[in-house]
Amino acid sequence: MTDNRPHMPPAVVLLSGGLDSYTAAAVARRDGFDLRALSIRYGQRHHQEIDAAARVAHALGVAQHLVLDLDLSAMGGSALTSADIAVPKDRTVTADEIPVTYVPARNTIFLSIALGWAEVLGASDIFIGVNALDYSGYPDCRPDFIRAFERMAQLATKAGVEGRPFTVHTPLMHLGKAEIIRLGVSLGLDYALTISCYDPAPDGTPCGRCDSCQLRAAGFASAGLADPATRVAR
Amino acid sequence: MTDNRPHMPPAVVLLSGGLDSYTAAAVARRDGFDLRALSIRYGQRHHQEIDAAARVAHALGVAQHLVLDLDLSAMGGSALTSADIAVPKDRTVTADEIPVTYVPARNTIFLSIALGWAEVLGASDIFIGVNALDYSGYPDCRPDFIRAFERMAQLATKAGVEGRPFTVHTPLMHLGKAEIIRLGVSLGLDYALTISCYDPAPDGTPCGRCDSCQLRAAGFASAGLADPATRVAR
Repeated sequence: MTDNRPHMPPAVVLLSGGLDSYTAAAVARRDGFDLRALSIRYGQRHHQEIDAAARVAHALGVAQHLVLDLDLSAMGGSALTSADIAVPKDRTVTADEIPVTYVPARNTIFLSIALGWAEVLGASDIFIGVNALDYSGYPDCRPDFIRAFERMAQLATKAGVEGRPFTVHTPLMHLGKAEIIRLGVSLGLDYALTISCYDPAPDGTPCGRCDSCQLRAAGFASAGLADPATRVAR
Repeated sequence: MTDNRPHMPPAVVLLSGGLDSYTAAAVARRDGFDLRALSIRYGQRHHQEIDAAARVAHALGVAQHLVLDLDLSAMGGSALTSADIAVPKDRTVTADEIPVTYVPARNTIFLSIALGWAEVLGASDIFIGVNALDYSGYPDCRPDFIRAFERMAQLATKAGVEGRPFTVHTPLMHLGKAEIIRLGVSLGLDYALTISCYDPAPDGTPCGRCDSCQLRAAGFASAGLADPATRVAR
């Protein structure tokens, strides 16, 4: 598929199956990158995420979608990977505390794997859909972390040592959820393909009550749009 | 097993099955840490590495040995993970060039996973057996990289944000191979348990000709010791 894109530099885009990473990947495509999507099956409670990532990758027309397994549930420590910790429901979402859905070092691990693949591909660009506003309080979604990762990446790699540093693009960093949604809609995205819920039913129906469902619903409401992925009337 | 070690802080030690990581872990044990060994089955050509890591972990009496799978061979790009790239033999080992056995971002990925587990365990200490002298030219074995990783880790994690930074210990950083071997022998290590070869025979016999075999042989020779893991007469 890359043969007919001779002038497009490759970029590794982390794709979770959620709304944010889909939008970040669409920005990468808009900006002229040849997309290589990377998803990690990390032992998250619901496998619907990876199914959604595959749908999104197909919709974006990526050149390649690599799905790797890394069973972080063997470590535990998060409501997203451990059956022993419940996903909080109906809480007031605030960035002032780090919730139990925090997966220790998750973005560091994902970006590190993306870095390795980028170096293999000869890519200098990585896209991740983190944002510092509606970010649920995760430390590894902040600009300081991203800049520190870039500095580390330059020292860690053959490419960096040879003068080809990596850029971690965070096009959503300073956008609120409503702005992200409006951006995606302007790029023609179909958010019905995505899933954001931390604790969906087996058929993929979102719970509507976890932090992620709350942030998503508030975002669509604020954007004045209906969420096409919501199966229940609101 | 941890019940009778109430005063020993936990430390995550990356254990490859080779000589260096065994020695680094032994230093951690000597320094009073409760060892949690982490090995990654990353698609390296030989599975003997993980067998050796299990032997070493048992010999060290670690409290826990976590083996995680992450198939980096799906990315390719290294002689250690791709059948398409041959392991170089009989070359002059120099730190001036980065060889094809370099696995892109490997230590970054391993340290990131170690960081996640350390945070789950409440550990602030990670041990890795890198060294900057006989290091085969890998960029992710240098002190600058380790310091950059620590700075990134502090920003990446809940623990770091809350004022509990991580230390990446590299007790072998400035030791030559002979010094590492003498250190390990002084700590009572049995190097017959380890494997260093990049391309061993199916029965585990080292090739004797790859960079890693050459560095190991030179180290034992310089230390004036016989390598207990070498099955062929030298």
